[in-house]
Amino acid sequence: TYMRGIHTVTLIPGDGIGPEISSAVMKIFEAAKAPIQWEERNVTAIKGPGGKWMIPPDCKESMDRNKIGLKGPLKTPIAAGHPSMNLLLRKTFDLYANVRPCVSIEGYKTPYTDVNLVTIRENTEGEYSGIEHVIVDGVVQSIKLITEQASQRIAEYAFEYARNNQRASVTAVHKANIMRMSDGLFLRKCREAAELHKDVKFTEMYLDTVCLNMVQDPTQFDVLVMPNLYGDILSDLCAGLIGGLGVTPSGNIGANGVAIFESVHGTAPDIAGKDMANPTALLLSAVMMLRHMGLHGHAKNIEAACFDIIRDKKVLTKDLGGNSKCSEFTEAICQRVRDLD
Amino acid sequence: TYMRGIHTVTLIPGDGIGPEISSAVMKIFEAAKAPIQWEERNVTAIKGPGGKWMIPPDCKESMDRNKIGLKGPLKTPIAAGHPSMNLLLRKTFDLYANVRPCVSIEGYKTPYTDVNLVTIRENTEGEYSGIEHVIVDGVVQSIKLITEQASQRIAEYAFEYARNNQRASVTAVHKANIMRMSDGLFLRKCREAAELHKDVKFTEMYLDTVCLNMVQDPTQFDVLVMPNLYGDILSDLCAGLIGGLGVTPSGNIGANGVAIFESVHGTAPDIAGKDMANPTALLLSAVMMLRHMGLHGHAKNIEAACFDIIRDKKVLTKDLGGNSKCSEFTEAICQRVRDLD
Ligand SMILES: CC(C)[C@H](C(=O)O)[C@@H](O)C(=O)O
Ligand SMILES: CC(C)[C@H](C(=O)O)[C@@H](O)C(=O)O
Repeated sequence: TYMRGIHTVTLIPGDGIGPEISSAVMKIFEAAKAPIQWEERNVTAIKGPGGKWMIPPDCKESMDRNKIGLKGPLKTPIAAGHPSMNLLLRKTFDLYANVRPCVSIEGYKTPYTDVNLVTIRENTEGEYSGIEHVIVDGVVQSIKLITEQASQRIAEYAFEYARNNQRASVTAVHKANIMRMSDGLFLRKCREAAELHKDVKFTEMYLDTVCLNMVQDPTQFDVLVMPNLYGDILSDLCAGLIGGLGVTPSGNIGANGVAIFESVHGTAPDIAGKDMANPTALLLSAVMMLRHMGLHGHAKNIEAACFDIIRDKKVLTKDLGGNSKCSEFTEAICQRVRDLD
Repeated sequence: TYMRGIHTVTLIPGDGIGPEISSAVMKIFEAAKAPIQWEERNVTAIKGPGGKWMIPPDCKESMDRNKIGLKGPLKTPIAAGHPSMNLLLRKTFDLYANVRPCVSIEGYKTPYTDVNLVTIRENTEGEYSGIEHVIVDGVVQSIKLITEQASQRIAEYAFEYARNNQRASVTAVHKANIMRMSDGLFLRKCREAAELHKDVKFTEMYLDTVCLNMVQDPTQFDVLVMPNLYGDILSDLCAGLIGGLGVTPSGNIGANGVAIFESVHGTAPDIAGKDMANPTALLLSAVMMLRHMGLHGHAKNIEAACFDIIRDKKVLTKDLGGNSKCSEFTEAICQRVRDLD
């Protein structure tokens, strides 16, 4: 059903530079004749009937209908007790897998070349359970919750992802030498999923060893799957290897095709509204979205156009090492995508 | 009392390449006329009266008397229920601070130069509490335990370390946006210690942000202090930046001057006994030990000799990119240290 016709996507432009980079993406999608129609929604957490924080009903309704969302950066709420919007979105739509492909960008120099890996992070439980207690004065505990169901779901997702994306291996990242029961359960589920996917190579590694090996030679890694906090850390580390959050796409995947793709950088209030922002991370997230929807042709063209312009080095935003405006960078990609068509 | 006379140090040579690299260190110390006398002890966990795992009494007694230990790698026990010797040693002697200076080694090429930072890891609690439960079938919890006392102790240690080692800043690494109570408590204690050490700059950063910034530009960091698991991860990551565990020293510090210095690499059973091992990590750990004991002159000479030989590139072990034997590399350092004397 995704292959033909026009598809409606919920667009959450976000705060700060969010609106600028969102409109850059829309322009490039138009130039690429991508069959996407955007339904803009704002999100700020509101208090529901029972005092529970929730996202605005019109955003929820739009996502429930469209199933697919694209999201810019949201500012971190400062009010005490106010939840992180990112966490609330993950929870509301049960987006259980955070997927971040980290691929070296030709022409954008970092200490590493040929990085080509994907981190898959369990997105719903673990250290993010939110359960904490004061035991006695001065003694606090936080609970890391690992369930068989969520572990199995993410493990299977990782192997299916590897299979569907022609990736040869999956590495489970854990500290089951220390957290024998919780990480042990996670690991067992990964081993079971590996048994069902014998076409994909399976290895398991300690988180600390992965971090060490990652900075020494990231090319040895392919797909990595891990509990929530480890994913938070490793996905940022890996983004750093290829140039940072300004160029790294991200997707949050739920059941039944529901997914929100997002740039994971900040709102950059200092440059907001100044036509200086870099839309690359949001654009590449939107490319992930197109692939998720089966629109591979459009995905390929837009991605190629973006990488061409970065490789050319003629029109780049400041953070990418150039001195062009966001609108100029966007226009260059639009031109290029029209040529590719 | 450390300044004059001969000091006895408990030496735990360890397994695999442990004995070879230990005797390399002893030779170099002899060449440097370091006033150290070694008391060798083996450790394998034994079951005490109440069925509790403990280290052998003669090792415990030696450490209690000498207060200072130097330790090679210990093999990970495979028997179920058998504790990690490293964890048991930390526990037995309440070694609450793991300190790892990561300094770029001239002549040993990695993607980074001018790294010069120290990770200080809380070594006794947090995610390493060992408390785990099955709640219902398929639902497991691990408890992260943070106490005011341990947080305060490590925070104060970090600031004192910075002050005593002419380091300008301390960064507290946390996820208090997620674990508000536990990491929140840790962070509060760091802030309080900062108030008492106004001569040292204090900053706080999210763990994920630190990982990202670390691989992009490690030179921005100085002293970093953090809870147990974050330290496990970051210390290995940082070791990777300067060449790995084969060249990174480590110290575990307890109260009243008690400390064990150790190389944190593995036992390398494949090359054990073949005169191929690299003693650098253990040697640099022994240099940390000398500084801890106030023997700065000897520390400086031995360190300089080691770095000189690595910079010269003429006599290097295989893992360092050469084709010399452990004994040849050791002899080269001995020669050099005699020249420096
Ligand atoms: C914003 C914050 C709650 C979040 C997290 O810790 O998961 C962020 O770091 C991320 O990776 O999306
Ligand atoms: C051996 C293992 C228990 C240990 C840890 O996880 O702390 C190791 O990784 C370390 O850093 O010393």
